[in-house]
Amino acid sequence: MQAEIIAIGSEMLTPFRVDTNSLYLTDQLERLGIPVIRKTVVGDNREHLKAVFAEALQRSDLVIGIGGLGPTEDDRTRESVAELLGRPLERSEEVVRMMRERFRAFGRKMPEVNLRQAMVPAGATWLPNDNGTAPGLWMETDGEKIVLLLPGPPPELKPLFEEYCLVKLRSRAPRQAFSTKVLKVTGMAESEVEEKIAPIYRTYKNPETTLLASAGEIQIHLRGTGADAGDALRRVEELGERIENALGDAVFSRGNESLEQVVGLYLMMRGATLAVAESCTGGLLGQRITSVPGSSHYFLGGVVCYSDKLKTKLVGVPESMLKRKGAVSAEVAEALARGIRSRAGATLGVGITGVAGPQGGSPDKPVGTVFISLAEAHRAKTVKHRFPGDRERIRQFATQAALNLVRRKLLK
Amino acid sequence: MQAEIIAIGSEMLTPFRVDTNSLYLTDQLERLGIPVIRKTVVGDNREHLKAVFAEALQRSDLVIGIGGLGPTEDDRTRESVAELLGRPLERSEEVVRMMRERFRAFGRKMPEVNLRQAMVPAGATWLPNDNGTAPGLWMETDGEKIVLLLPGPPPELKPLFEEYCLVKLRSRAPRQAFSTKVLKVTGMAESEVEEKIAPIYRTYKNPETTLLASAGEIQIHLRGTGADAGDALRRVEELGERIENALGDAVFSRGNESLEQVVGLYLMMRGATLAVAESCTGGLLGQRITSVPGSSHYFLGGVVCYSDKLKTKLVGVPESMLKRKGAVSAEVAEALARGIRSRAGATLGVGITGVAGPQGGSPDKPVGTVFISLAEAHRAKTVKHRFPGDRERIRQFATQAALNLVRRKLLK
Repeated sequence: MQAEIIAIGSEMLTPFRVDTNSLYLTDQLERLGIPVIRKTVVGDNREHLKAVFAEALQRSDLVIGIGGLGPTEDDRTRESVAELLGRPLERSEEVVRMMRERFRAFGRKMPEVNLRQAMVPAGATWLPNDNGTAPGLWMETDGEKIVLLLPGPPPELKPLFEEYCLVKLRSRAPRQAFSTKVLKVTGMAESEVEEKIAPIYRTYKNPETTLLASAGEIQIHLRGTGADAGDALRRVEELGERIENALGDAVFSRGNESLEQVVGLYLMMRGATLAVAESCTGGLLGQRITSVPGSSHYFLGGVVCYSDKLKTKLVGVPESMLKRKGAVSAEVAEALARGIRSRAGATLGVGITGVAGPQGGSPDKPVGTVFISLAEAHRAKTVKHRFPGDRERIRQFATQAALNLVRRKLLK
Repeated sequence: MQAEIIAIGSEMLTPFRVDTNSLYLTDQLERLGIPVIRKTVVGDNREHLKAVFAEALQRSDLVIGIGGLGPTEDDRTRESVAELLGRPLERSEEVVRMMRERFRAFGRKMPEVNLRQAMVPAGATWLPNDNGTAPGLWMETDGEKIVLLLPGPPPELKPLFEEYCLVKLRSRAPRQAFSTKVLKVTGMAESEVEEKIAPIYRTYKNPETTLLASAGEIQIHLRGTGADAGDALRRVEELGERIENALGDAVFSRGNESLEQVVGLYLMMRGATLAVAESCTGGLLGQRITSVPGSSHYFLGGVVCYSDKLKTKLVGVPESMLKRKGAVSAEVAEALARGIRSRAGATLGVGITGVAGPQGGSPDKPVGTVFISLAEAHRAKTVKHRFPGDRERIRQFATQAALNLVRRKLLK
């Protein structure tokens, strides 16, 4: 059983948008043992759409179309596929009812244009969209091929796929077993990681190993196949363990948790709380920590002390220190960490101050210089970093290093 | 003249990698007036490769293949395309010489496997790669179609394209001029925007209009063609103006500025400063504002008052109010806005409090309920919202609405 993914939307043929839904779907399909052999991006053009679906159905057993199910004129997936398969579109009153209810819940009246989204090709099964108006559509051809149409917005696509498509696909999927594992590493450069683990993973053809690097994080992806689930899992676990032993506690996650999730978990386990005072990261650290549901259990909050005045007024950094040492200094980082810790009444306090650029660098403190401090009751630890890259990358590196400082403290 | 881009590499059929080279090439081709009608990702498989190039050549005048030109066994683009076009591969001694020199410059001896990269299909023109070993390949078919093969790494692809392909393509490109414009809208739903502007843009075949929606933002992309640059620009400006008139000041950008850039610009122009107290957005608002270089000129900072304690301690929200009205209330939002404004000594203060979910909702204040307040010296304006979607989307909506509140205040 082979699959293809067709991402639909003229905007993805512009320089501004890239299809990322296919990454999620590829992952889901891989777990089912269904390889994706081709991905296509095509515009909202009826003839192009019919051609691309027709070609895909000649090659593959499962063709998933994403997007183009919106209410407007330039959403043409529904019509094009219905025409290709020779299925007239019929309005589903049940879909209309669900859409009207959805609009009512948000206190709005459904615009008439939305009625287009209730059109269902004859013989198709529509799949409820709990997070939007366009339902998914599941069709089977005479040749026993499957065409699945999904809405484009990820918050609609993902739940719809997991809730209504997975079970149907699982019953059709081959009986081959797959297993995957992701190890995440922080505090090491990609080349260091590679040097330590290449001699290990190169001796394995199965599992396959892939390294992916971003600012302050290296991910090691393992993918094993086997005669059964136990066999595949065993292969992945064996290599995973060898790699972990080589890297030690630079590995912060062996499930797929983010660093902010891991730090949250450790804080919960220790019954500890955290508060942060961030300057150059401007709220990014708080945003990352609070992106985790339930973070209010351990995160008390913080101050975005972008101006010197707020460093003094809200976190208690002495004006004289700012004058003497400069806002970007180890002393100010520590004063921020200690100040926010005591003001918030938290177990741990983090202070960040640095030069994210592009302006503001000096020979002494070039762009990328960031001081990060972690304060406990009776001591503080402060680290000076020099991060590469642009403003965005430097800020990402800085929050990654700050979270890692907290993680390492809680590891002990 | 129409183009297609084929990205080649099995790694791009995994969940971990996305093709971004095509964004660069799409931009370059658009400037030449050559639209990209399809993008495909295919693995390093000889049969799949031959099929995808054969299909593309039936539809399009220019087919660009990216990647799969490396020295190893699993790089099969060169062979597959040569076979498809019936051109035997011949070793180019000039390419061999250049490759050997390149290795010598890095103090290394060229491995024998690299000789594969010197194989050139009969009749093809090879294009020097100044930043890697694989040369580009330019082929023309009897039907006057062009096949261009480029190396995958962006630092090799981009200079090679600009240095050796642009001129050749420009002489083939249509004598037609292009112009594009992006209008960005906030504070309206996609369907509302569509209802207002569809009757206008539908009367134009040129420029083409595309709508792109994300949480709290609708982008309207216009793309016009004309006999010359002035003509194309005129067409785009005319439609752009009509659309703007229909939408009024819901349009916040007519260049490609983000909402946080526009708000920053307005603050600068007015000599005003801003401070924020955010609860459910957890730092996202600060992070967005400070993502703009130079934001320290107008952004003083803020408090991420995730806990009630910090709302009281750092922003001065009365404990009694929190008890009586609840942390998620219009009163607390206003107290946050007023409190942070006066503490920071800012011209404007913003307060955000809400339920981002997934937990914490109640019948009275369901997930997605967010109060946003904007305080000036002698008054405050507070708005209650109910945003749809998951935690991430609700937080994005909330910061968008907060920035828009500031923008609208400064518009007056």
